[in-house]
Amino acid sequence: MSDPCVSIILTGDTPALQRTEVKQPRLQPGEVLVEILCCTICGSDLHTYEGTRSTPCPTILGHEMVGRVVDLHPEHHTVDFLNRPVNTGDRITWSVAVACQKCEYCRRGLTQKCTSLFKYGHQKLTDENYLSGGLASHCHLVKGTTIFKVPASLPDQIASPANCATATVMAAFRLAGEIKNRSVLILGAGMLGITATAVAKSRGAASVIVSDINPQRVQRGLEFGATHSILVKKDQPLHSEVHHLTQGRGVDFVFDMTGVPDVIESGLEALDIGGTMILVGSVYPARPLQVSAEQVVRRLLKIEGIHNYVDLDLANALNFLERYQHTYPFQKLCDQSYSLEEVTQAFEATGEHHSYRVAVLPQKKS
Amino acid sequence: MSDPCVSIILTGDTPALQRTEVKQPRLQPGEVLVEILCCTICGSDLHTYEGTRSTPCPTILGHEMVGRVVDLHPEHHTVDFLNRPVNTGDRITWSVAVACQKCEYCRRGLTQKCTSLFKYGHQKLTDENYLSGGLASHCHLVKGTTIFKVPASLPDQIASPANCATATVMAAFRLAGEIKNRSVLILGAGMLGITATAVAKSRGAASVIVSDINPQRVQRGLEFGATHSILVKKDQPLHSEVHHLTQGRGVDFVFDMTGVPDVIESGLEALDIGGTMILVGSVYPARPLQVSAEQVVRRLLKIEGIHNYVDLDLANALNFLERYQHTYPFQKLCDQSYSLEEVTQAFEATGEHHSYRVAVLPQKKS
Repeated sequence: MSDPCVSIILTGDTPALQRTEVKQPRLQPGEVLVEILCCTICGSDLHTYEGTRSTPCPTILGHEMVGRVVDLHPEHHTVDFLNRPVNTGDRITWSVAVACQKCEYCRRGLTQKCTSLFKYGHQKLTDENYLSGGLASHCHLVKGTTIFKVPASLPDQIASPANCATATVMAAFRLAGEIKNRSVLILGAGMLGITATAVAKSRGAASVIVSDINPQRVQRGLEFGATHSILVKKDQPLHSEVHHLTQGRGVDFVFDMTGVPDVIESGLEALDIGGTMILVGSVYPARPLQVSAEQVVRRLLKIEGIHNYVDLDLANALNFLERYQHTYPFQKLCDQSYSLEEVTQAFEATGEHHSYRVAVLPQKKS
Repeated sequence: MSDPCVSIILTGDTPALQRTEVKQPRLQPGEVLVEILCCTICGSDLHTYEGTRSTPCPTILGHEMVGRVVDLHPEHHTVDFLNRPVNTGDRITWSVAVACQKCEYCRRGLTQKCTSLFKYGHQKLTDENYLSGGLASHCHLVKGTTIFKVPASLPDQIASPANCATATVMAAFRLAGEIKNRSVLILGAGMLGITATAVAKSRGAASVIVSDINPQRVQRGLEFGATHSILVKKDQPLHSEVHHLTQGRGVDFVFDMTGVPDVIESGLEALDIGGTMILVGSVYPARPLQVSAEQVVRRLLKIEGIHNYVDLDLANALNFLERYQHTYPFQKLCDQSYSLEEVTQAFEATGEHHSYRVAVLPQKKS
């Protein structure tokens, strides 16, 4: 008899989190059992934990993760996104969303909006799958999960955010298109913002302006490739600063990671004619944006939203991290780690925002 | 000595319009003199005439036009957009905007936003060019104007709106991309709206819903290829009707030709996940749109503005009109015509909105 699995369940009740021992799942064809090596806590995990974001309970939070394959159904030949065989012992990550590939949204390439989506770290636990989140010793991968072998050179803590933060940034840049020799403004220098800064710089943007209200974050943005920075202050509209930096021209691309209407509106004012605003951060309720349709028309602006990502974006995320992990100080972003027994402290540390990412290492003993 | 040219000048003073006789211009290399056969009055001409839109004066209004070449500078080999030689006697139209092809906007393909734009029907008259609008016997084409020979089968009145209304619609569809087998909603069934309806249908859209507040216009939309129509009423939100027609799904593309914030906001609500809103009609001041950034993100929406067009769009406009002029009743759209001496009546008739387009035929004797 194998060792039991351990999970930290978000109960939706009191106590909020409950450590639970469960038996190892029996795999069906196409399923994979993974021992979780690292789960980094994403902003949305924190919001759910703090109760400002709702989710069906009981559930296991955590979706940014890297694991090691410990079991595969013997009758199924499992391959990763690049068609490489997946075997026991392989270090892998996987797409947070499992899509049917058949519904109308899937057929249009919007797999993240599949009508029968399974989403790790967001699923209500069932008898068939009671290990669907990262805050556990193991994760039970359902059939159809897109798996990616993690490059050997990538440490767990750098690879872990790939399947959420980094892949979402890649999706945003996929929408934006060619940015070589163009000017880019990044609104918000959190995990997505500094990743976007590094992506913009690595793709040859002529200038990358990073902005935030927090001076440490602005400084981190400069370490991640920004050519200019703006420390946003209440009495100085952001777009005035952008116009000052660009000799009145404005920028070609704005990526909003904040979701703050005042910031987005100022970002729209900062766009040059023909400019593109990619909205990423607006994943929580806020007042409506006030948008001048006449400006959108006369200045030929584009506003586009991205939510989650498709498999190819995660492939690009891993490639990007492998290639640029030493160019930009990605190793500095996750400098606090906790064991599974210390999940509460991990959430508290995430809420204090000293680190860009806090890791839970389920194999670590407290 | 050649006959004098006649122009109807918008003085910016009293009287508003002044008939003026001027001598035929001496052409510089690359310039062309055209005898105007037909000038259709666009909504923006009417707004300028009525004083709700400002323009530098004195000017000659009118930019939707077709003419016949009467003079070319002998030392310059003039060709049209398709590189066909242009000679005296050729029936032509031309791009309303002449771009430098060198500035940063031109190099990015945004020639309609060239930093040194010359725009027929919008220029302040000068000693060098005092025949830059369509409400005149002749138009003096500046060097760099992109000329298009008009297909022989296209009557003047059908070809005349090509270089504004039809080309703008083509630009909007260029932004939208592939619409085959997709669902399309057209907001506003004026000249642009019914043209867009016909374009959507001709490009294989699975469904084309046309909407307007005017029952005659809705009916005209059905004649121009709409598969469904919505007569917009004050107490029935447009998007509810769209959801009713689409079994709750919404549409893939919305083209707004109205510029009315209530209508645009309802159009955004009518979009399916992954949907695209192309804004065309917002060329006048209006209250800001209220846009939920969270909806744009979670539903992966795109909002894009188009203003004017680039040369290729006009080529596509002429091709489209040549091919579909008998499929859809384009000949019905312009059923009132006036001489140059009757321009005031032409503007009044335009304001009464009985016709989609009113034509001024400068060679017609009153």
